[in-house]
This record gives sequence, structure tokens and C-alpha cells, in this order.
Amino acid sequence: MIKVALDAMGGDNAPKETVKGAIEAINADSDTFVYLVGLEDVINKELANYKYNKDQLEVVAASEVIETGEPPVMAVRRKKDSSLVKALYMVKEKKADAFVSAGSSGAILVGGQTIVGRLKGVQRPPMSPLVPTMNGVFLLADAGANVDSRPDFLVQWAKMGSIYMENVVGVKNPRVAIVNVGLEEEKGNQLVKETFPLLKACDDINFIGSIEAREIPNGGADVVVCDAFVGNVILKLYEGLGGGLLKKIKGVLMSSLKTKIGALLIKNKLKEELKTMDASQYGGAPLVGLNGLVVKTHGNAKSTEIRNSILQCVKFTKMNINDKIVKSLENMPTAND
Amino acid sequence: MIKVALDAMGGDNAPKETVKGAIEAINADSDTFVYLVGLEDVINKELANYKYNKDQLEVVAASEVIETGEPPVMAVRRKKDSSLVKALYMVKEKKADAFVSAGSSGAILVGGQTIVGRLKGVQRPPMSPLVPTMNGVFLLADAGANVDSRPDFLVQWAKMGSIYMENVVGVKNPRVAIVNVGLEEEKGNQLVKETFPLLKACDDINFIGSIEAREIPNGGADVVVCDAFVGNVILKLYEGLGGGLLKKIKGVLMSSLKTKIGALLIKNKLKEELKTMDASQYGGAPLVGLNGLVVKTHGNAKSTEIRNSILQCVKFTKMNINDKIVKSLENMPTAND
Repeated sequence: MIKVALDAMGGDNAPKETVKGAIEAINADSDTFVYLVGLEDVINKELANYKYNKDQLEVVAASEVIETGEPPVMAVRRKKDSSLVKALYMVKEKKADAFVSAGSSGAILVGGQTIVGRLKGVQRPPMSPLVPTMNGVFLLADAGANVDSRPDFLVQWAKMGSIYMENVVGVKNPRVAIVNVGLEEEKGNQLVKETFPLLKACDDINFIGSIEAREIPNGGADVVVCDAFVGNVILKLYEGLGGGLLKKIKGVLMSSLKTKIGALLIKNKLKEELKTMDASQYGGAPLVGLNGLVVKTHGNAKSTEIRNSILQCVKFTKMNINDKIVKSLENMPTAND
Repeated sequence: MIKVALDAMGGDNAPKETVKGAIEAINADSDTFVYLVGLEDVINKELANYKYNKDQLEVVAASEVIETGEPPVMAVRRKKDSSLVKALYMVKEKKADAFVSAGSSGAILVGGQTIVGRLKGVQRPPMSPLVPTMNGVFLLADAGANVDSRPDFLVQWAKMGSIYMENVVGVKNPRVAIVNVGLEEEKGNQLVKETFPLLKACDDINFIGSIEAREIPNGGADVVVCDAFVGNVILKLYEGLGGGLLKKIKGVLMSSLKTKIGALLIKNKLKEELKTMDASQYGGAPLVGLNGLVVKTHGNAKSTEIRNSILQCVKFTKMNINDKIVKSLENMPTAND
């Protein structure tokens, strides 16, 4: 069985949705085992609502909770008995294969790197969410873990992202592109200009060159690499602009009796189409390149995203992604600084 | 009269839409004079379609055209008799106050800086488009002119952008923010960390701190400063994601008889709401900080955007924006490199 340590207390909807998501995951897959880490009484009270196979779940007591606003480094260092820190230690000590949390992004990033630790050969694990396009998803690396990156970091992310997309998402020979301000090879900032030839020289990835941000939502690439500052801007602008436009459309639909009738006629089709823009079916954002797997879901994740994140960890572990990553980085010059 | 040199041959829809836009501008404002620069015969043929005051327009012959795909530096250097280069020289020689083109971005950037030249004290003129939000517009500086920027460039852009928004767009005490990956003051890459205290120390701008990309479409700031790499990603992702989502919605509306009937009921309201997201009423993207004004419209600009860009130049010149910019930069340490 693949064992996932779930931070049952993390996120806006914990522990209700975290516990529900855990139950949904183990009910969906008999090879999945979940450690629910957190306040014992609270978790057990939630668990009482469900029927499930007791051999696939265990509650692990943790007396503290890290709040979203807390300074991450301090929180991880001081709250040793928090659900987040305790669950991460279970991965470090190989009691669990992977970790899932909807809690503080900062604490997950810090804790993932300092407690779980990096895989052999990995310089900087990137936060690598799957982001929806008009016709699928792409993996964005790095979406927020490492600002002021170096060219060799981006090359590693391209390799790791390709392995992830091929094995976990099932995209054959994924197209890798680097975010740029134009398509000509002489375009770009210094980081891009230095990284481009390194990516071009990799014979184990399908590098298609530069991608302008305009083409990203059109599905122009399967793995999009960039510095974490740029990646974070892409991810958050996606959320802000997508959310804002949908709110505007809803406002239009609800503005009068006439438009409300119109809304009834298009509602089902609209929902169906927008569902394809929801990446939560793929789980959360993995911090790839650690000794195990650390997955961060949205802070407001509901049970479905928790469930899918747990199943994502199971697939990741079963597919031996980390072995593949270590192997792909073997021939790279490393500067483990 | 304020004189605007229009590159009549630039853009996908030239010279039909450029000539039409020029006519619309001079018919809208009797203080506006337009030089239509380009192939004389072609322009005169278009002009024959319109009635207008001949004292407000003059055709200036230019025998060459710079195409979108040409390498900008070479094109500007070699095609001395192109409409783009000739129109820029008219600004340099003070025959015209401003320049408008829907042509090659690269050639406009290169030509603007090398032919027209920088204002006293300006280090790097930023490409500064007005970008729509859910309830207005913000000025984005820099959207593509200067990658790998320095902190003092961004400070100048904050000042110039504030002057533009206050005087040309009419936003009182515009809120200035720097793009960042979080709101806490310790967040950011090196550029942001170095720029933040400099912006905080400016007493002539209304600096409100960091802005995450998620809040940009919500109208979280009136002037958004960032490195041109990041700005270009913001601008192009806006176009790509906005366009993609609207295409998806259109697809929904056209998918069946039922949804087509629904579409009829919401059409007018939807158009009205989406019109508020169209920034072309404000004209094109100004390259601010030159001895004159250089404005780049979209490559596919129609007459309305051309017209508004010309009127934008008139307002900019009448409001003495360049004097205000020079004055605001006087007390800054300059390193005109």
C-alpha cells in the first residue's frame, strides 16, 4: 500500500473537507493508505460520519496547528508538534511516501525542503502546479518556490516536469518551452538567454523553444519553465483574471429577468465547458524533487481536491517518479549549493 | 495646433484604417493636425473617400515600409525613407509633437530611443500601456522595453506613470504598486527588495506597496511597476487568457439552438459589460520619457484606436506632461548610461 500523510488541520475547510477527502481517496483505491495527522478528538469526530476500511486509515495525534499568516520559517522551527511538521517528518522517516496539505504555502515550502530534504542531484525543488488551458493542462515550473533562479535550475525543472507530465498525466513526449518576451532566439532577459542553449542541448526532453505568455492559455506547451517570480505572476494572474471575467459574466447573467432566462438556457453547457478549465481533478501543486512527494492544494480546497491530491501521490509513488528523476539528473553537472 | 506624425503604413490594416483614424481624429478636434507619412499615391487614394479640413492634414511622402518581421535595429538603420523612420525624424526635428504607429514594436522601440531620444534625466523610457481591469484601467510600466531593469529605472517609471495617470487619464493621486510574489515586505526577488525602499522613500507618489498578480485585474493599483520581462508576461497573458475565455464563452453560446436563443437574451448586456474591458478608448501604448511622445497601437488596430491614439498625443502635449516629468526627475540621482 502507498501511504500518504495528510495534514488534516491545513486549509480553510479543515478538518471537515480534509477528512472527507481522505475517506473518498481510500474508498476509491484499495492500495491507498492515509495517515490523518492533527487534533485527535476533532478528527475522530469527523470520522464518525463515514464508513471506511479501517486498515487503510490511521489517525496520528498532533497537538498544534500552523496558521496561514504565521512566518513560515519560525512556525516550522517552533511548532514541532503541529500537524504540518509532524506529517512531513513521517515522510522523512519513510513512514509515509508522500505528504498533502492545504495549509500555509510558505510553511509547506520551508518544511518540505528542510525536513523532507532534496533528492540526490536536485538543486532546487520547484513548485509545479498543473494549470488549465483551453484544451488541457500544462505543468508550470517554478510557480513560486525559487525566485532569482539560475539557468541550471531551469534545466532540471524541464527534465523533472517532462517526467511528471509523461508518467503522471500521461502526455507522450511532452513539449517543453521557456517563457519569453518574443520567439526569436536573441530575445529575452539574461536568464533566458543563458538557459535557452542549455535546454536546446538536452537530448532527453522535447524542447520546442520560447513561448510568449499569450500562447500559454492556448496550450502552446506541456511543460513551461521560468523563474519562480515570473511563474508566480502567471499562476496568480490566471486566478485573478479568470475569476474576474467569470464574475463579470455571472453579473451579466443575473442582471435582469431577460438575462436570467437566457442564463437558464446556456447554464448546463457553460458549466460543462468551464469544468474543463478546472485543474483540481489532477490534484494539488507538487513540490517535485524531494525525498518523497510534497503536495500543496489550494487553501480553500474541498474534499475532491484533497482526494485527487492523495491519489496523485499514489500514482507518483507507484510510477517511481523519483527514481526516474534521479536517473535523468545523473549526467548533469551539479552544484549542490 | 498639436501636430502628430502618423505612420500611415504601419499595422495589419494600413493604410485603410490609419487614414480613416486620422480623419476621425481631425474631425473630432479642431486643434489636431496630422501628418500622414507613407506611400503618397496609396494614401491619397484613401483620402479621396473622406471630407475633412485640409488645414489639419498633410501627406508626407515616404517610399519604404518596415515590415513586422524585420530585425528592428537593421530596419531602422537601413530604411531611412520608411514611413516609420521618417515620421520619427519629424518628432526629433520638432516638426511634429508626437508619433503614432501600429507597425513593428521592435522598430518603434529602437527608433523611438535612437531617433527621438530621451528626455533630460530619463534613464530608460518604459512601454506603458493602459490595461483594463474589472472596473477601470491601470498603467503598466514597463510592458516590454527594458528587460533586466535596475531599481532606479522602476522608481522613474513610478513617477512618470503617476504623472500620466493623473494628467492624461484623470485619476487623482494614483496608487502605485510594485508587482510581487507576496505582500510582506521581506518577499520578492532581488530587484523588488532593492526597489521597494526606494519607492517608499518617494514623497511625490502614492506608493501603496506590493501587488500580487491576482489583484491586478481587480483594479488593485493605478500604476503597476515591474521589470519589462514580467510586464510583458502580464500584458500577453491578459490578451491570451482574456481572448481564450471569451472564445470559449462564444463557443458555448453558439453550441445549440437552445444556447443560441439564450445568447440573444444576454447579448446586449454582455457586449455592454465587455466594452468596459476594452482599453482602446484610451489610445495605444505610450513610450514615455522621450523628447516628444511615441505611441504604439496594436498591430491590428482599427480606426478607432488610431483616432484615440492621436487624441491621446494631443492631450499629452497640451498637458505639458514632458515638462512635468523632467521636473519630477530633477532631484533624482541620475546615471544616464
